[in-house]
Amino acid sequence: MELNQILHMNKGDGKTSYSQNSQVQGKILSVAKPIIHEAVLEILSSYNIESMGIADLGCSSGPNTLLPISYIMDAIHAKRSSLGLQLSPSSTTEFRVYLNDLFSNDFNAIFMSLPAFYNNLKQEKGPEFGSVFVSAVPGSFHGRLFPAKTLHFVHSSCSIHWLSRVPPALSNTPAEAAGSALNKGKIYISKTSPQCVLDAYSLQFHEDFSSFLKSRAEEVVGGGRMVLSLIGRPSSDPTTRESCDQWELLAHALMTLVTEGLIEEGKVDVFNIPYYAPCAQELKLEVQKEGSFVMDRVEGFEIDRDAGGGESDDMVASGQRMAKSIRVVAESMLEYHFGKDIMDHLFRKYAELLRDHLSKFRTNYTSLVISVIRKQ
Amino acid sequence: MELNQILHMNKGDGKTSYSQNSQVQGKILSVAKPIIHEAVLEILSSYNIESMGIADLGCSSGPNTLLPISYIMDAIHAKRSSLGLQLSPSSTTEFRVYLNDLFSNDFNAIFMSLPAFYNNLKQEKGPEFGSVFVSAVPGSFHGRLFPAKTLHFVHSSCSIHWLSRVPPALSNTPAEAAGSALNKGKIYISKTSPQCVLDAYSLQFHEDFSSFLKSRAEEVVGGGRMVLSLIGRPSSDPTTRESCDQWELLAHALMTLVTEGLIEEGKVDVFNIPYYAPCAQELKLEVQKEGSFVMDRVEGFEIDRDAGGGESDDMVASGQRMAKSIRVVAESMLEYHFGKDIMDHLFRKYAELLRDHLSKFRTNYTSLVISVIRKQ
Repeated sequence: MELNQILHMNKGDGKTSYSQNSQVQGKILSVAKPIIHEAVLEILSSYNIESMGIADLGCSSGPNTLLPISYIMDAIHAKRSSLGLQLSPSSTTEFRVYLNDLFSNDFNAIFMSLPAFYNNLKQEKGPEFGSVFVSAVPGSFHGRLFPAKTLHFVHSSCSIHWLSRVPPALSNTPAEAAGSALNKGKIYISKTSPQCVLDAYSLQFHEDFSSFLKSRAEEVVGGGRMVLSLIGRPSSDPTTRESCDQWELLAHALMTLVTEGLIEEGKVDVFNIPYYAPCAQELKLEVQKEGSFVMDRVEGFEIDRDAGGGESDDMVASGQRMAKSIRVVAESMLEYHFGKDIMDHLFRKYAELLRDHLSKFRTNYTSLVISVIRKQ
Repeated sequence: MELNQILHMNKGDGKTSYSQNSQVQGKILSVAKPIIHEAVLEILSSYNIESMGIADLGCSSGPNTLLPISYIMDAIHAKRSSLGLQLSPSSTTEFRVYLNDLFSNDFNAIFMSLPAFYNNLKQEKGPEFGSVFVSAVPGSFHGRLFPAKTLHFVHSSCSIHWLSRVPPALSNTPAEAAGSALNKGKIYISKTSPQCVLDAYSLQFHEDFSSFLKSRAEEVVGGGRMVLSLIGRPSSDPTTRESCDQWELLAHALMTLVTEGLIEEGKVDVFNIPYYAPCAQELKLEVQKEGSFVMDRVEGFEIDRDAGGGESDDMVASGQRMAKSIRVVAESMLEYHFGKDIMDHLFRKYAELLRDHLSKFRTNYTSLVISVIRKQ
């Protein structure tokens, strides 16, 4: 089965659901809010749009899903209010909102929250705000999703660091299954990974980000904008600890299960996470190389990985929260490869390793936010 | 809770799922196929469309969901093939396909079937066919769903006979709960219903169908078309047996549970199905009255209610199949009102009553299909 039919955030609203464990993603979203606000105001200033097309790519399902749309609507409302709510006939009166994620995302849960979303919007913004039409567009954002020149603003948060596939050089072919795996005992770039592993990951990210930009270039009107947040790394070195340690520890947890005889070593050797944390420079270069968009802003933010925690010093609870925050995003792939039965045990081990790690190191994510403009 | 948050076809693919029990809806769809085909060809003949907007309203979730879209794509492909696949630059190259149903519809299941749908389309029609963008637009088709003038073809099957609410004169208010229910012991129009019940149902349907037409009039471009199939009745008399007996027998089954002490009589008295089977004349008059569309065709078809059955004379199996076919469409509302626990028992009773009924009467649905054109 293709990755885009497997990968999804954990569904429902139970203890190990994405919906209950997406505080980090909420933080990453909230630091980008002023940049989203600014980009929307720029769009409104540059031209009159009767029907504004807005897309959120990789919307997932949970308390964060409709937040970017609310941010955008707030920005539009604030701008209008500052103009004394004078709506000229040429003002935007229709907002086409497209929520995108992969085919296996829990769109049903989003849709059940829409009646309340529409009601709030009406109450907060009044009936003269205009008509908002929310729809869902399932599919991979590495290809075309929308008709040509129909979008004015594209947003994406915590999604572009997911790759369209495991880099093919590392994927599970019979030869590798027979013992020639390149990234033995690891599941992502690691200090000990050979250069070809680093190259395979980097190549796949550049291929994916390039096809992302190419597809959006067709869909976004001239002067339209995109604000993209993703997990990046703070330095140009792809093996830097901050960028790799979460997967290093998860590989360690998997290898512990190998020593316990619960999974085969060969299965770990050929499993690799379809994820890549780029540095700001890589994003800039790719935008430049693809050529359809102009880079307006690039910002980096440090985000506490234990965003769900309070002031407590309890490393056990912190390790458990961080393990859960990775479980809800990666379990669909791990379960597909290793089976359902070992998941609870694996993530208990992982939480213990994270607890020990936390006592020695600071654990922040680097969130990169870029704002780009479609050339005319 | 509002009806549009409760009503949905039974989810999943189990024994009492809509997905496994929608053969009647499949038949109703298939008899409309030539009319859909004809309408699509008329649209293609009347003007060049670069980006064609197609909506299916009340798409539900199951084996029938993507059929209307396939019918439409087949019609377009056939037309093009007959022209020797000569695509002028002005030919339609983008198809915006919008699947609509209420917020609680199982869109997740539809989305999981989309990769195969896209693959088939590509294989059958070739890469030069154009880009098809399928999205989901949840909400009630009794109000606006789409931006202005964005649709060229609208289809709806087996949906418009559902009302937006139980006619308010019959709905559950405290006064009625206290014993003044108008439709005692019944859940739809019945031979013994007072005239005010008939009027309340008819009024609600006309209100709903009018708001359906008004909303679509905004969304459909001049010259655009709609093909609508729904369950109607064969005569002008709204109490005619063919139109009422399925609900008459379900009311009977509910009253049997009252005598068994399993549900309160008062609960049956205030429960009414938000459904109305109009006659062809009512549809014609409403289209004329609303004024935005011209009626092109009205057709009536007789559909065997036991569409899942073979040539067998087994009344028991037939009664069970028909009971299930009603269960999968009405259970969400019955469960909300009467509770989950009695559902199995209720539908066993209902199947028995249907079996007895089948030995005495022919049981067909009347499917009405109308084809209308948006005035320029």
